[in-house]
Amino acid sequence: MEQKMSKWGFKSEKRTVTIRDFLEILKGNLNKNDKRDVIHLGHGDPSPYPSFKTSPVAEESLLNALRSSLFNGYPPSAGLSPARESVAEHLSKDLPHKLSEGDVFLTAGANHAIEVVLSALARPGANILFPKPGYPVYEARAAFSNLEVRHFNLLPERGWEVDLDGVEALADDKTIAMVVINPGNPCGNVFTFEHMQKIAETAQRLGILLISDEVYNHIVFGSNKFLPMGLLGSVTPVLTLASMSKRWLIPGWRLGWIAASDPNGVLKKSGIIESIENYLCITADPATLIQINLSMISVFEYRYEMKYFLKGAVPEILEKSTDAFFSRTNDTLRESADACYATISEIPSLSCPHKPEGAMSTMIEINPLLLEDVKDDVDFAMKLAREESVMIMPGSILGLKNWLRLSFSVEPAILRDGLERIRAFCSRHSNTLQGYMKLESRRCASSNLMHDDC
Amino acid sequence: MEQKMSKWGFKSEKRTVTIRDFLEILKGNLNKNDKRDVIHLGHGDPSPYPSFKTSPVAEESLLNALRSSLFNGYPPSAGLSPARESVAEHLSKDLPHKLSEGDVFLTAGANHAIEVVLSALARPGANILFPKPGYPVYEARAAFSNLEVRHFNLLPERGWEVDLDGVEALADDKTIAMVVINPGNPCGNVFTFEHMQKIAETAQRLGILLISDEVYNHIVFGSNKFLPMGLLGSVTPVLTLASMSKRWLIPGWRLGWIAASDPNGVLKKSGIIESIENYLCITADPATLIQINLSMISVFEYRYEMKYFLKGAVPEILEKSTDAFFSRTNDTLRESADACYATISEIPSLSCPHKPEGAMSTMIEINPLLLEDVKDDVDFAMKLAREESVMIMPGSILGLKNWLRLSFSVEPAILRDGLERIRAFCSRHSNTLQGYMKLESRRCASSNLMHDDC
Ligand SMILES: Cc1ncc(COP(=O)(O)O)c(C=O)c1O
Ligand SMILES: Cc1ncc(COP(=O)(O)O)c(C=O)c1O
Repeated sequence: MEQKMSKWGFKSEKRTVTIRDFLEILKGNLNKNDKRDVIHLGHGDPSPYPSFKTSPVAEESLLNALRSSLFNGYPPSAGLSPARESVAEHLSKDLPHKLSEGDVFLTAGANHAIEVVLSALARPGANILFPKPGYPVYEARAAFSNLEVRHFNLLPERGWEVDLDGVEALADDKTIAMVVINPGNPCGNVFTFEHMQKIAETAQRLGILLISDEVYNHIVFGSNKFLPMGLLGSVTPVLTLASMSKRWLIPGWRLGWIAASDPNGVLKKSGIIESIENYLCITADPATLIQINLSMISVFEYRYEMKYFLKGAVPEILEKSTDAFFSRTNDTLRESADACYATISEIPSLSCPHKPEGAMSTMIEINPLLLEDVKDDVDFAMKLAREESVMIMPGSILGLKNWLRLSFSVEPAILRDGLERIRAFCSRHSNTLQGYMKLESRRCASSNLMHDDC
Repeated sequence: MEQKMSKWGFKSEKRTVTIRDFLEILKGNLNKNDKRDVIHLGHGDPSPYPSFKTSPVAEESLLNALRSSLFNGYPPSAGLSPARESVAEHLSKDLPHKLSEGDVFLTAGANHAIEVVLSALARPGANILFPKPGYPVYEARAAFSNLEVRHFNLLPERGWEVDLDGVEALADDKTIAMVVINPGNPCGNVFTFEHMQKIAETAQRLGILLISDEVYNHIVFGSNKFLPMGLLGSVTPVLTLASMSKRWLIPGWRLGWIAASDPNGVLKKSGIIESIENYLCITADPATLIQINLSMISVFEYRYEMKYFLKGAVPEILEKSTDAFFSRTNDTLRESADACYATISEIPSLSCPHKPEGAMSTMIEINPLLLEDVKDDVDFAMKLAREESVMIMPGSILGLKNWLRLSFSVEPAILRDGLERIRAFCSRHSNTLQGYMKLESRRCASSNLMHDDC
């Protein structure tokens, strides 16, 4: 019996390592004797921290939906009509063309939107272009769907803009789409409109679909405004993926969407919309209560005249708090980003090429020559967890060796503590001149074969 | 550009027709001039009807979880610990071995549990055994995962037991698992322990995994008790799929689970558990609030001493109402099942071989010879929708031509109205003797080639 059951050899199937996987590894490396609290800079879940509490509007409207007992039944596979309509209306405010209910598909968060879109697009032999560094859920789902992944670079020296020459060089007639993430995770950059135009024109020229991950939409605190890629839907069709997780600070509610900005109807004609609808029929749904809540939040926000929907009138104060709520989040993140940038600049072995101006994380380069006993980014993260009880994500997991991703969406006081622990760690491990010379000569020896400029 | 985008030919990809798809087709066939309400006997969502309102325990505990603001963050990929533990504890009460947190994986409903398990099991060349009639989400997900499906019969003349000789004949060394649904959808049957033992022994002999869909667990109202297949986990390892949808009447909350009953650790050794855990890392999660709610409901139900968990003490009355709530549902369903069985027995062209004793639907056989102008089950459903504004599911969608699936989990008064409309439809379309002779002779002519016993 056991023999028969193990004939399948399930163990051999391996997935791409995701952020969740590596967090588990890091957790296992923590020192239980360290009395200090563990500081989580390795992933972005701001919701437990007082400074990032969700808006009362969101909670109040979910309470109303629940109290009504009207929303306990199954949702339709593409989402409830009023919720799809609210998202369409909400997004349309920033677009030159109007989206309708049929352009929006609800998912259980943006991660699930990634699953839906990649499952709908996967074809034998097809390939897809992802940014490096990126968000590893894309790689994991592409691997599951047997989509070949090709990586284009984001360029630190150009504020993490897309290397568009690289994109042109990678694409061929089997390339189905390219993904951009804006505001950027992990780099914390925000695209200019000029750069977005170039991206759209490149996708148009290559005849590939443009997938824009805008899960951090409106979370910007630098000089660039957030602009949706859907603005350029008439240049090239755009599928936008986003969710309530970040802007409303409720990632546990699991509600996201796919929105098609495609005024020329290319996605419909080529069957991509149908393919998405088909996959939605056979995959998970977000909870009905939370879907209706989405439309209620929008009601309070955008359609004041409908505020008596579902009996319970929400106090004026809640409606007015919405803008204040959004700016509070961005103000906190701006200060946190500044604190990161300032502290990292003071640490000799680390550098941050671009001050974050959006989203919730930044990329930090390690100079291993300036550190003793720290081999690379993975080693840095493992030792930092063990010695300082600080979790941080090695860049290797996101495609960039010897970089680190620091998520700064934690309580500001905790962030400052974490940054000081990183400073202490780097200073304790900082190399002596002797050590530096040794490492440097070893590096020269091993790279001598290729070039002699060291 | 358009040419390039359509090179992929997305339209050509077709899925198995699911119940959701066919409901859409039926909806399109309704007569908008019919002033009567549409009666939905085509799918099982009891939650909108007053007789099937969910328990106040469920709503009250979700309110408490929401008010606490503690559960807005991301859940872990296999589910929150206290929720997994509650399910393990709850299921263990009916099992000879104790389940622990690690044996339970939370999903966004049982449909999502089906996705997770089939995705984790799929291998090139593998096949899987499903019941006929069955639940088409299995077929749709297997097709997506390129799992070859083989159907064994459920036998109406034996109260819809599994044709185990058929199972033995279908299985080969590429067969990975078999699925049973108990209490049965669509047949409304409940397996005896004796039959469950034979199923487990067959799976054991064949060395295939036994997947038991128990989404209707404890929803029984005939002579057979509900018994979980996990009871036989030491005969053969069992993966049980279930959810809160049916028993708690909250399908829109989207919370289900996979539970492994495997005291001999076969699933762990063969890597199946790891394969499930891997897939859970890259798929949708149920909302955190609703997960914690699950453990709170269980707290109220099973661990009275913890009732002050999360401050808000739930009134005694709620705790006591739990049993009454469950029996109310079963009593209502018993009466509805009886009403269906009695009415169908009185209609000459229809027959119900087995009075339903569990779950929420029953299978009805059509005798097309006794009907004029009604070609088959699909034609029956289409004309019934058009003429009587009653939706019912053709058996063809579930694998049985010229049968119908009637879901009786609607408000009893509405069900009675629906049954009378079906009676009127059949009587209006009942055949004359002349018509019968004509159809009968046509049937003989066409079947003469195979056999001459008509
Ligand atoms: C770039 C990016 N896309 C998608 C997601 C998933 O977000 P959601 O919570 O909506 O699933 C995240 C979450 O961190 C992200 O950073
Ligand atoms: C046999 C069977 N399995 C699974 C499901 C899915 O249930 P859930 O609501 O938990 O996704 C259903 C729903 O009707 C069902 O009938």
